[in-house]
Amino acid sequence: MRKLLNAEIKKIRLNPEKTKEITRNPITLMLDNVRSLYNVGSIFRTCDAALAKELILTGFTPYPPRAEIEKTALGAVETVPWRYFKSTAEAVEKLKNEGNKIIAVEITDDSRKYDDLTFDDFPLCLILGNELTGIDNDILSLCDSAIEIPMYGVKHSLNVSVAAGIVLFEAVKIWKSIKNSNT
Amino acid sequence: MRKLLNAEIKKIRLNPEKTKEITRNPITLMLDNVRSLYNVGSIFRTCDAALAKELILTGFTPYPPRAEIEKTALGAVETVPWRYFKSTAEAVEKLKNEGNKIIAVEITDDSRKYDDLTFDDFPLCLILGNELTGIDNDILSLCDSAIEIPMYGVKHSLNVSVAAGIVLFEAVKIWKSIKNSNT
Repeated sequence: MRKLLNAEIKKIRLNPEKTKEITRNPITLMLDNVRSLYNVGSIFRTCDAALAKELILTGFTPYPPRAEIEKTALGAVETVPWRYFKSTAEAVEKLKNEGNKIIAVEITDDSRKYDDLTFDDFPLCLILGNELTGIDNDILSLCDSAIEIPMYGVKHSLNVSVAAGIVLFEAVKIWKSIKNSNT
Repeated sequence: MRKLLNAEIKKIRLNPEKTKEITRNPITLMLDNVRSLYNVGSIFRTCDAALAKELILTGFTPYPPRAEIEKTALGAVETVPWRYFKSTAEAVEKLKNEGNKIIAVEITDDSRKYDDLTFDDFPLCLILGNELTGIDNDILSLCDSAIEIPMYGVKHSLNVSVAAGIVLFEAVKIWKSIKNSNT
């Protein structure tokens, strides 16, 4: 077993010129009042890897161009479609009108497990909230439902970019298995 | 739908005094020459959330006590068992002798998908490598097998703490489903 060389990996990756033509996964990620530039940069990178449809940045979440975001995103700012909305509530309404189910990633009194997504949940927009306070209850009340990652330990939460990676790759896996079972 | 309050969440979490008595998931994570203190801290936090058995730090991977690790780990340095080995090769041999399957998280010429783990892979030790260069080929040659997270976009990789979160929570999910189907 040996590591593939960068040149070998490049051959099996999506050509940058083709990113605009291809069908992206019907999964949008929204970051509501996320504070850290590094988390935003890391999440751009994850959205590229998962071929997420779009990254929505709202409230005081920092947005490009910012050197720190681009440093952590390693080029993914150019490959992932993104929009900024000052108002999270307006962003949620807009994404709903565009046909998405709006699903909060949050520990609520009515959350499903993060791997319980079904066909009816797609296309979906997953919302992650602030590093300390999560998603505000007034935004939660606009969401169609909520999912949560089970926490088996002593602490209450994951870093927001880690949580984003877990829910995004799980959603992609579920979407691909739905697609495959329908063809 | 409303967010659970911290007091409500605390009630459903593991009691810190009980962490030493409970059976942890048979999944160890090894970080080989990971550079960033913040990645190490974030991975401590993820290992707590996943109730991973242990976190192994090798080579020039920073290890506690370091203020930056503790700041990002948010207390998880106290709740996650960990060991440091200067030599990654020795750490791999040690973990093998302790009965673990050693599985590299790396893009190789012979990697399975990250969700292809089966009963025979447990107890397992997942190795993640340096942020830029991944796992060295001489360490790869000591591993039992390799898994990879599919990269659907233009870039080649995820942030190492994001990748750790994705493989760790997937391994926990697979382990729990194996356990449930056997009971």
